[in-house]
Amino acid sequence: MNIRIGILGYGNLGRGVECAVRQNPDMELRAVFTRRDPKQLQILTDTARVCSAEALKEWQKELDVLILCGGSATDLPVQTPEYAKFFNVVDSFDTHARIPEHFAAVDAAAKEGGKTAVISAGWDPGMFSLNRMYANAILPEGKDYTFWGRGVSQGHSDAVRRISGVKDAKQYTIPVEKALASVRAGENPDLTTREKHTRECFVVLEEGADAAQVENAIKTMPNYFADYDTTVHFISEEEMKRDHNRIPHGGFVLRSGVTGWEKENRHLIEYSLKLDSNPEFTSSVIAAYARAAYRLASEGVHGCKTVFDIAPAYLSSKSGEELRASML
Amino acid sequence: MNIRIGILGYGNLGRGVECAVRQNPDMELRAVFTRRDPKQLQILTDTARVCSAEALKEWQKELDVLILCGGSATDLPVQTPEYAKFFNVVDSFDTHARIPEHFAAVDAAAKEGGKTAVISAGWDPGMFSLNRMYANAILPEGKDYTFWGRGVSQGHSDAVRRISGVKDAKQYTIPVEKALASVRAGENPDLTTREKHTRECFVVLEEGADAAQVENAIKTMPNYFADYDTTVHFISEEEMKRDHNRIPHGGFVLRSGVTGWEKENRHLIEYSLKLDSNPEFTSSVIAAYARAAYRLASEGVHGCKTVFDIAPAYLSSKSGEELRASML
Repeated sequence: MNIRIGILGYGNLGRGVECAVRQNPDMELRAVFTRRDPKQLQILTDTARVCSAEALKEWQKELDVLILCGGSATDLPVQTPEYAKFFNVVDSFDTHARIPEHFAAVDAAAKEGGKTAVISAGWDPGMFSLNRMYANAILPEGKDYTFWGRGVSQGHSDAVRRISGVKDAKQYTIPVEKALASVRAGENPDLTTREKHTRECFVVLEEGADAAQVENAIKTMPNYFADYDTTVHFISEEEMKRDHNRIPHGGFVLRSGVTGWEKENRHLIEYSLKLDSNPEFTSSVIAAYARAAYRLASEGVHGCKTVFDIAPAYLSSKSGEELRASML
Repeated sequence: MNIRIGILGYGNLGRGVECAVRQNPDMELRAVFTRRDPKQLQILTDTARVCSAEALKEWQKELDVLILCGGSATDLPVQTPEYAKFFNVVDSFDTHARIPEHFAAVDAAAKEGGKTAVISAGWDPGMFSLNRMYANAILPEGKDYTFWGRGVSQGHSDAVRRISGVKDAKQYTIPVEKALASVRAGENPDLTTREKHTRECFVVLEEGADAAQVENAIKTMPNYFADYDTTVHFISEEEMKRDHNRIPHGGFVLRSGVTGWEKENRHLIEYSLKLDSNPEFTSSVIAAYARAAYRLASEGVHGCKTVFDIAPAYLSSKSGEELRASML
């Protein structure tokens, strides 16, 4: 029998999960749950229903895993603990600093309900975290580097959009090639924020807005831009639609370490992602961890798990024999 | 209490494990076991003993994990099942095609003895396998590529050394940049053996040997060289010692895949290693999996495991809380 999936929330991530489920033949989307009017929501999967989020708890026997596709700021801190009592759940909670408290809340709820929850499945947190952890375990003496981009930062794009006179904006985070090259060369540089990434903004102005003023407001914005070298391009609405309609992202996780009795040998471990669609890749990671959540639940392993706690084989549709014969 | 480690076999790998154990503060090397005369063997660790392999079974209460550092051709197929009855063991068995039978033999032995065995820990098999598996689980529709090098192939170096007239030889496997670039560009090329790697040999001739004859013997050698573009350099013994005394290696695992309802978005996952010392990096992976073997054994999880079966957190000396707070 297929793994029966439900999705709560139908933004970019929810739609991405819908697409990812279709690519996994052992999974089946049963329903999308929305806080909007279900009648107004059009999904892609003919065989799945669209239901009100209020009806969710009636679906306990109909779903194997519920995937929570809300935002990390306000949705998931409430939703994941709430639904982990009733469903096996997966989320992609990505506020790094708040993961410990989110874990604690979800763990308590999942244990209370006898369910399995996976939090922070995605690529950072997620695949990047895994690679940081593996690399640190293998090379205990070394230095870590994470670079992001080239890709769209939703948070920074939103920050620019809030500036008065800005009609629309998209911000790209770009790793500095020179810094990457230095890390790859084993130079173990100490890098400032400015030396690691640059920021590039594409801005559509409101009619009559002052470009110089907007540019200055962006470049001096604390936390978001002041510590970076930022380039601002003013473009038309048509250019925005034509050239910036995707949500690409990616990045690099590196660890540079030493081995040998005299620490005489150097090693570099590098993991990188180049993604056309940030939400769809995140969704693909979520789908694989939904399979893991389902299997762990079947084995009676309850509570909250992260990517660190789940053996890789749980993610794959292949059996142990198949994996050993084809991929080891 | 520290994890008490024993090493069987003291070649490049055994010495690498000795160095790796020193870099892990929760581990302690207790003894190196050798089939040679223990009196003739000098190790680096003052506090560890050197003993005859024949005495190994008397050490059952003194060791938490025995690391098997023999070769995959003849040593490990015998040693790992033999010692898995009496010790928790880790090996780096790397004959890909024979992993299923090795797994079966070790699994039976470990279960019989109530022990935990980890086989094929290293980087290929090992970290490369993990990355192939994760990437396949995340992107079910895509294409895999593995490139090796630039690095020394022991097997190919040995093959050249067996040619009459060759005094010493070292063979480097080199990935073809153009092929790598095509994969990275998302072109999903179908690559022949020749298009993926070139081979470069450095050869010291016996006095009076015919260089042209040796070069021809190398380049036409079936399986090893005939399907590759091979370059042969003749050098002096001094140059060999000065310029080719290391055992570097590395390589690249890539998966190029698509997502989206119409498969309209492309993604590239890339994992790469650049290693000064192949045996020392392999040893570092082994040390991390020795920690995992010890912990699994403590939890009563017996039998044979591979990198696919072991949750990442088992490799780290950090607690779950620490990992979530610092690396997720």
